[in-house]
Amino acid sequence: MAALGDWWDRLAAGNGFIEFIDACLRGVSQVMLQNNPLSGLVILIGIGWGAFDTGQPRVLGGAVVGLLVGTATALVLHADRSSLRQGLYGFSPLLTGIGVSTFLGAQALVWIYLIAGAAATTVVTLALTTVFNTWGVPPFTFPFVLVTWFLLMGAYQFAAYHVRTPSRPALPGTPEAVASYSGKAWLGMLEGVAQVYLIGSWISGAIILLGLAINSRWSAFFAVLGAVTATVIAIWFGAGAKNAEAGIWAFNGVLTAIALGSVLYRPSAEVAVYALFGVAFTVIVQAGLSTILAPLGVPTLTAPFVFATWLFLLPKRHFAPIWQHRPIGDRIFSDLRPSTGDRK
Amino acid sequence: MAALGDWWDRLAAGNGFIEFIDACLRGVSQVMLQNNPLSGLVILIGIGWGAFDTGQPRVLGGAVVGLLVGTATALVLHADRSSLRQGLYGFSPLLTGIGVSTFLGAQALVWIYLIAGAAATTVVTLALTTVFNTWGVPPFTFPFVLVTWFLLMGAYQFAAYHVRTPSRPALPGTPEAVASYSGKAWLGMLEGVAQVYLIGSWISGAIILLGLAINSRWSAFFAVLGAVTATVIAIWFGAGAKNAEAGIWAFNGVLTAIALGSVLYRPSAEVAVYALFGVAFTVIVQAGLSTILAPLGVPTLTAPFVFATWLFLLPKRHFAPIWQHRPIGDRIFSDLRPSTGDRK
Amino acid sequence: MAALGDWWDRLAAGNGFIEFIDACLRGVSQVMLQNNPLSGLVILIGIGWGAFDTGQPRVLGGAVVGLLVGTATALVLHADRSSLRQGLYGFSPLLTGIGVSTFLGAQALVWIYLIAGAAATTVVTLALTTVFNTWGVPPFTFPFVLVTWFLLMGAYQFAAYHVRTPSRPALPGTPEAVASYSGKAWLGMLEGVAQVYLIGSWISGAIILLGLAINSRWSAFFAVLGAVTATVIAIWFGAGAKNAEAGIWAFNGVLTAIALGSVLYRPSAEVAVYALFGVAFTVIVQAGLSTILAPLGVPTLTAPFVFATWLFLLPKRHFAPIWQHRPIGDRIFSDLRPSTGDRK
Repeated sequence: MAALGDWWDRLAAGNGFIEFIDACLRGVSQVMLQNNPLSGLVILIGIGWGAFDTGQPRVLGGAVVGLLVGTATALVLHADRSSLRQGLYGFSPLLTGIGVSTFLGAQALVWIYLIAGAAATTVVTLALTTVFNTWGVPPFTFPFVLVTWFLLMGAYQFAAYHVRTPSRPALPGTPEAVASYSGKAWLGMLEGVAQVYLIGSWISGAIILLGLAINSRWSAFFAVLGAVTATVIAIWFGAGAKNAEAGIWAFNGVLTAIALGSVLYRPSAEVAVYALFGVAFTVIVQAGLSTILAPLGVPTLTAPFVFATWLFLLPKRHFAPIWQHRPIGDRIFSDLRPSTGDRK
Repeated sequence: MAALGDWWDRLAAGNGFIEFIDACLRGVSQVMLQNNPLSGLVILIGIGWGAFDTGQPRVLGGAVVGLLVGTATALVLHADRSSLRQGLYGFSPLLTGIGVSTFLGAQALVWIYLIAGAAATTVVTLALTTVFNTWGVPPFTFPFVLVTWFLLMGAYQFAAYHVRTPSRPALPGTPEAVASYSGKAWLGMLEGVAQVYLIGSWISGAIILLGLAINSRWSAFFAVLGAVTATVIAIWFGAGAKNAEAGIWAFNGVLTAIALGSVLYRPSAEVAVYALFGVAFTVIVQAGLSTILAPLGVPTLTAPFVFATWLFLLPKRHFAPIWQHRPIGDRIFSDLRPSTGDRK
Repeated sequence: MAALGDWWDRLAAGNGFIEFIDACLRGVSQVMLQNNPLSGLVILIGIGWGAFDTGQPRVLGGAVVGLLVGTATALVLHADRSSLRQGLYGFSPLLTGIGVSTFLGAQALVWIYLIAGAAATTVVTLALTTVFNTWGVPPFTFPFVLVTWFLLMGAYQFAAYHVRTPSRPALPGTPEAVASYSGKAWLGMLEGVAQVYLIGSWISGAIILLGLAINSRWSAFFAVLGAVTATVIAIWFGAGAKNAEAGIWAFNGVLTAIALGSVLYRPSAEVAVYALFGVAFTVIVQAGLSTILAPLGVPTLTAPFVFATWLFLLPKRHFAPIWQHRPIGDRIFSDLRPSTGDRK
């Protein structure tokens, strides 16, 4: 495996076209915060499987076109080269491509929308990077979310498009009745891994999990942990069975758990607890966003992960001492006692 | 009184547990932008009176649990110690505790929601402090607003929760018919002081006003001024009698008047005029937010105060000359004439 | 013309009152990102023509009062004098005055709303300038948009006001049926130039275009280009004929094209392509915002222009190399090849 990686790296270093493909494949894995072309390739196979399995082969086309257009736009705009090589301008346009082809049908006009949307996603990535650099947090998949929301909400105003989101604009009302859960909820958690890429297939979920494990077993572990935790909390609070069994409550938890548990902090027991609290928070944000978006007829996409992770990253300097593994328990009250006389 | 204060301060300085209680009590008063444990204690009595008076004793429990959990979370996360001692990590979670127990009923599951929400409020406080430091303004009660909005909107998606907000999700429509106002509108203004803590009782309002006056008579004065001005403007514009008489139009005006009139600027005739303009602005923001939130089925909480006060604080450097008490009237036009030849 | 300009400039430099008038007239032209008192005067005549032509003479009054109150507020608040002289505190309150008098009828109470709203628009301008300075972008007309949205949404809560926006709060639904387009669509594009000032009259559009050309022929050219491009895209995507023929899809495109094509970048073929991409983006943002605002019953105003232009300005540092006119085509792939061995 390592030898294969070295061979590919040498190939990419010596050929601009291969390097472009390398950046695109890394982009596929960057949705999951990984930086590995082989992971990206395996995940792309998982996307392809799901696209054909659910009878929407155009979704694979949308994914590839979005990825290529988005990465090429960054190239044309002379965006930061190191970020480009890591696939950081490819992952959001990839998702925009999947989102547009999933939720807007298969007309020719949709492809113009998709290509312009993928290019715009890269522009939005550059803009939001400038804004969020102020506080040292990355935009994650928010450019995808923002552009896809506007493309879908915009499509409601145009007769040439037919929006096929899970629900039409409606006032948020009484929650779905809690059905008796079948064993399918467990497959739903695996399907949740695929739902990160908007794919509703548990086999795709397994393939994508394999792609994840190729680069980082911790990330694969936290992906499963996040999917299980998020779904269990949602079911406990009385979420409807249909969404839970389709992995709808899982996929944002997958991303938050990977981000907080294995990428942005070094894995440890304390970090795992913090990540799980972040996952619980993600579930609430997703439920709240579902209410906000109900009158607009668009899904939450990965916004709950983005908002929750921003929130848990922003105070990081304040948290610094926690990661020094001091015993916390016995210091809760004594901590307030001034030891140096700094009290005014 | 001063001797009592000294005795308490010595006690708190020598004992971690008493200091924690001191920080919590200060937190109760910080909702009103005060920093005084005795004020906090009196206000807590006012909250308790209202909780029992309106037949919802659990609200007092929610308030205390929110306050303790929020402050303890800041302690565990090693947040800035000086801010912690002033109660700045307690006031938003206190309100989250009141909000959740008021609007979500009394089931066991609600308490898990409340505890997690109070802890999350502290995390949001830390995050928003980082963001708003960029422009030198504090987040005020916005962490409470944001978390409570999401908890309530999220609850609409879960069968295990029953949302009891004043109005269900609905399209914003024609305003309530203007009823003939009874003398109750005057008590409504006093009730508005209690509505800062979501309490609908004018006796609580009187007790809370007393707590306010213990620390700052100017603040108590501006609280009344803000309540009267905001309610009068709302009635003048044709707001419905029911809300006006319940203090719903008053409580954001109370906060804006205290903030702009007595805490963030030094009280003076000019500052009073500026504060009253801020109160008028708060009424418009509250009405606009009511329209925005109507389809989502959640109340404005203290967001109108927060937005209006941010807006009137952000340009503060531009206003600097005003506070130097120059005669303004006769300089309006002459001011434009270049005196130093700095015109290009 | 130049002699006239010199004479006026000398007059304004020597007299505070004339200088105030000069700042106000420049403010009228600043809506279109121009800084020219004569342009402002001609445009004001265009506004007046439209106000009488559409049977709403009060709109001219609202425009003038908003302009005077907003500029005077900046004067009283001792805002930055150089910005004041360029009319930068006048253009948003001018639009607020037009918006309030157009959408809220003619009662006496509306004028209090209008005056307070115009003053508030200046405060919001100062606040947003502080916020957006962080990223080096101006707030454009967003203070107008924000204040007018809140004034209108607020009015829904008050019995004393009657909101007369194009559509009442409603769930976003199926788009208007595509009617057969008459030749009126071409006049609609000219009307779109007037719609920047919320005026529905193509003759006003022609007068305003003349005012624009007095200061910058490039701006007039890009105004027409933006109007045509935006309307053509909207019609192509299946927007309803009624709005397209009233210039509703054109006016944000006018502003984006002027801003990106002739003011913020130096006009060139490349910049024109970039500006047209910005115009296309503006159309999507406008459609998406229409969906977002449908349940709230307020129009998009110039928000689509503001959002799109922010987005295309924020990554400007990244775009720098583009404007150096390197041949782009043959470097797309070779660009990725490391030339200096900086690859890790």
